[in-house]
Amino acid sequence: MELASFMEIALKYKVIFFDSYGVLRNHKGVFSGVSDMLKTLNSHDITYYVLTNDASRSPQQLADKFHQYDVFEITSKKIISSGMLARDYIDNKVSKGTVVYLGTENSAHYIESAGLKTVPIRDVDLDKVSDYTALVLLDDEGFDWNTDISKTLNLLRKQNMPVIVANTDVTYPVSKQDVNVAIGALADMLESLARKTFIRFGKPDSQMFSFAYNHAIRKAKISKRDILMVGDTLKTDIIGGNKFGLDTCLVLSGNIQPQNAELLINSTGIIPDFICDSVMT
Amino acid sequence: MELASFMEIALKYKVIFFDSYGVLRNHKGVFSGVSDMLKTLNSHDITYYVLTNDASRSPQQLADKFHQYDVFEITSKKIISSGMLARDYIDNKVSKGTVVYLGTENSAHYIESAGLKTVPIRDVDLDKVSDYTALVLLDDEGFDWNTDISKTLNLLRKQNMPVIVANTDVTYPVSKQDVNVAIGALADMLESLARKTFIRFGKPDSQMFSFAYNHAIRKAKISKRDILMVGDTLKTDIIGGNKFGLDTCLVLSGNIQPQNAELLINSTGIIPDFICDSVMT
Amino acid sequence: MELASFMEIALKYKVIFFDSYGVLRNHKGVFSGVSDMLKTLNSHDITYYVLTNDASRSPQQLADKFHQYDVFEITSKKIISSGMLARDYIDNKVSKGTVVYLGTENSAHYIESAGLKTVPIRDVDLDKVSDYTALVLLDDEGFDWNTDISKTLNLLRKQNMPVIVANTDVTYPVSKQDVNVAIGALADMLESLARKTFIRFGKPDSQMFSFAYNHAIRKAKISKRDILMVGDTLKTDIIGGNKFGLDTCLVLSGNIQPQNAELLINSTGIIPDFICDSVMT
Amino acid sequence: MELASFMEIALKYKVIFFDSYGVLRNHKGVFSGVSDMLKTLNSHDITYYVLTNDASRSPQQLADKFHQYDVFEITSKKIISSGMLARDYIDNKVSKGTVVYLGTENSAHYIESAGLKTVPIRDVDLDKVSDYTALVLLDDEGFDWNTDISKTLNLLRKQNMPVIVANTDVTYPVSKQDVNVAIGALADMLESLARKTFIRFGKPDSQMFSFAYNHAIRKAKISKRDILMVGDTLKTDIIGGNKFGLDTCLVLSGNIQPQNAELLINSTGIIPDFICDSVMT
Repeated sequence: MELASFMEIALKYKVIFFDSYGVLRNHKGVFSGVSDMLKTLNSHDITYYVLTNDASRSPQQLADKFHQYDVFEITSKKIISSGMLARDYIDNKVSKGTVVYLGTENSAHYIESAGLKTVPIRDVDLDKVSDYTALVLLDDEGFDWNTDISKTLNLLRKQNMPVIVANTDVTYPVSKQDVNVAIGALADMLESLARKTFIRFGKPDSQMFSFAYNHAIRKAKISKRDILMVGDTLKTDIIGGNKFGLDTCLVLSGNIQPQNAELLINSTGIIPDFICDSVMT
Repeated sequence: MELASFMEIALKYKVIFFDSYGVLRNHKGVFSGVSDMLKTLNSHDITYYVLTNDASRSPQQLADKFHQYDVFEITSKKIISSGMLARDYIDNKVSKGTVVYLGTENSAHYIESAGLKTVPIRDVDLDKVSDYTALVLLDDEGFDWNTDISKTLNLLRKQNMPVIVANTDVTYPVSKQDVNVAIGALADMLESLARKTFIRFGKPDSQMFSFAYNHAIRKAKISKRDILMVGDTLKTDIIGGNKFGLDTCLVLSGNIQPQNAELLINSTGIIPDFICDSVMT
Repeated sequence: MELASFMEIALKYKVIFFDSYGVLRNHKGVFSGVSDMLKTLNSHDITYYVLTNDASRSPQQLADKFHQYDVFEITSKKIISSGMLARDYIDNKVSKGTVVYLGTENSAHYIESAGLKTVPIRDVDLDKVSDYTALVLLDDEGFDWNTDISKTLNLLRKQNMPVIVANTDVTYPVSKQDVNVAIGALADMLESLARKTFIRFGKPDSQMFSFAYNHAIRKAKISKRDILMVGDTLKTDIIGGNKFGLDTCLVLSGNIQPQNAELLINSTGIIPDFICDSVMT
Repeated sequence: MELASFMEIALKYKVIFFDSYGVLRNHKGVFSGVSDMLKTLNSHDITYYVLTNDASRSPQQLADKFHQYDVFEITSKKIISSGMLARDYIDNKVSKGTVVYLGTENSAHYIESAGLKTVPIRDVDLDKVSDYTALVLLDDEGFDWNTDISKTLNLLRKQNMPVIVANTDVTYPVSKQDVNVAIGALADMLESLARKTFIRFGKPDSQMFSFAYNHAIRKAKISKRDILMVGDTLKTDIIGGNKFGLDTCLVLSGNIQPQNAELLINSTGIIPDFICDSVMT
């Protein structure tokens, strides 16, 4: 397995799609060197976007997390989140009634749309379900799992409605060692128990890449061959990028340890075009 | 679909295996008529056992739930629970260390065994995991889902140990309309997240039937042809009984509405030998 | 459940996406009335495309199947097939070597690309696997299942390469009663046996809708709200259309019997915006 | 990881359950030294049985495969096969009609039972399905996959009947490098396509161990603690033995390479009590 210099690769493209966690930052904060790397891209007229499976914050709030570390190259316009796709879906497909959500109040605020109300699962009245027109799973925080998971299941048994999963990640890291179970895992369990088909947004699904691609082509005349997808996870970033027809670059600064990379690529059959230590190389 | 009289069928057998919930009782209590039905079986020298996927109570506690309704025909010796299989496993296969559990203190008390300690997941120290020798999933109550599900996952990431699921049911009814998510569903989610192979006890697994069968043949000279399995659920009671080589009787007093029975039998391919309205017919 | 007139609905949109099988045709041929229906759309300046999970024929060959029934409104430019996505993937992501295929020679001919050779699985030499750069599953015909399914598995065990599933359907009808097992089902089996992640094209995946959408917006200034997806299958056409943000119309001329429609919509949670008997209403 | 001497371990038990393939033999034949090992067990009054997921041959035919290599210690009475469980099921649960099978004529001959006819899938008349009372999946040979897999699916769509999978293995080795897809994999595919619940016999299912255990206790007064299960596969032999309450010994002469054993044990959570190079140590 040969490691390449990220910047040498990047300079061959016109647009870079970055995953966020494990690529630009981790649980300790934004990687040092990210700001300089993005400045170099800017100086070569290379555009970039951050594609993140996050539906708990607005693009502005996601950008603010970079600004805290003095990385001002990432503005809210650079953010493509799975929450934006959930919001788009609700805009296009849910025209009336009340949208039930699992997540924090903040996450719900973002998906609110003209003419719709949102209500947290705890305030749902199971005896009057006919006004609820959609259920959105946004975040693992903001509700009581002991009671509200069963309540969600009973809501779905009583009223047929589209269920939108705005973040498909099943865990997320909280320290070097430990993870938390994420809303994507609860969604899988609820879908299996309710025997319904949920609608999922977020990498590796191609709708995320399509959304980002449509943003990119509005700014510049490019084709898929001009885009590099950079990620630390084979099962979301790399397979998703590959399938959408993009070149892909695996970085070893997150999920995958350098000594395991080759084994994982061989055992999954998910093959990146390039492998780099990190985006600062 | 022809409905038979339960008693007419039962009298052709020497041993009856009853599922509990939906067959002998529901969320309101034990069905009236159960005591008389069991007395009739007794008067014809027909033995019976109650096979239940329950690991939250001891056999004595499970029998007490019948005694509250003046059904004294069901004693603790008549109870075969999945918790007994979990206890057996720990007896046979876990010889030292501390067994971590998810469930109530009461459920843990029952599986305690000579030479072993038990500890609830909330008291586990993730920095000192080497003494934990098994994990047992007993009940959906007794722990904080928001924190302890992730903690369980992190324990499994740090220390390799057998995981025993002592109740495979994924939901249980709490009223005519509503269900609660059960420990079996949390087990499925954790197994998928940890990518480990858990050990499951309870119907439809044949070990439950084998355990009951071995109890029965100790009391009387019988073969599998002398046993009737009675249940309200195709996917546990009926398929499990069929596979073990028993005759099976579906009753319509629980999970399955009479008007759906034929459709469900055809769509699942799980075919009972008999169908009755209830065990009081 | 209220049935609407298809034409009344269609006239509110600028673009119609049709599924083919069960909507415009079945095993006996193209439905009579399809030509007139399309002429009416033409006369109202409503554009249409046929979105089909078929990778066994080129767009021209797929259009010819309509011409045989004197439906000349469907030209090759109206066809969007999952085979076109597979071809696109190979164009973008496979630059050298030999592409192995399961399917007919005709299906392989279509995906051939400059600089690449194709080889049927039967001609693969398992002792010299390094030149094979991708595997494409195109069609259930054209190979010997008894020998070539195992041979495919052994190829994947020996050489890591992307696997493209160009048709995800698991069965297809061959008469009013009977179905054939399709390449999508063999793909699922092989993926599970090889423990690799395959790349799938075709409805309900959003890349199919995105591909069609990009065709449509090149011809006219439209948004997603101007498009109606029409299909006979909840799990491909309707959920796929819904997720992509399109309005959807279920027709009852194919997979779903009128008397089962409501039950299926409730049990799957896949809710079309409209239901019509057929596109000729 | 510490390797133990097999014989030192074995001498602590009264009964040994051996897996066959990878433990006593491989594609080249029976391992040299097996006969001596079994003679040593005999001389210490240690009983043994061979537990094999094979439904293509009778116990006598399976024993003959050992006799060809002059290992006469394994007689037909020492064989416990998943085919015997399938035969038992048919004996207990199918009392009339015709049993359809996938497999060789030889495999069908063995499951034939008084009062029942068997018919290969190719001779099934899909226009007269009412006489078919069960379907048994026995072997991957003896039928045309291109036509008969779809024919099986259409049979299950037309007539509701129990489906028995007499060998759950999904692949089997045919050389040092290559495998064949086995009937267990076809069963999984058909079950998923037909959406029925099939009945599976064979390790790791506990019914196989229970069947062997009941054979063993008829010959000698033993308990589960007196039995050692020896196998080369974590997902069948070891997890099955563990769950049934037996001590388990993993040997590295088959499926698992010595350098991968520890990784596999940690990643699956399936923990044998002992690890040996082979049964000849």
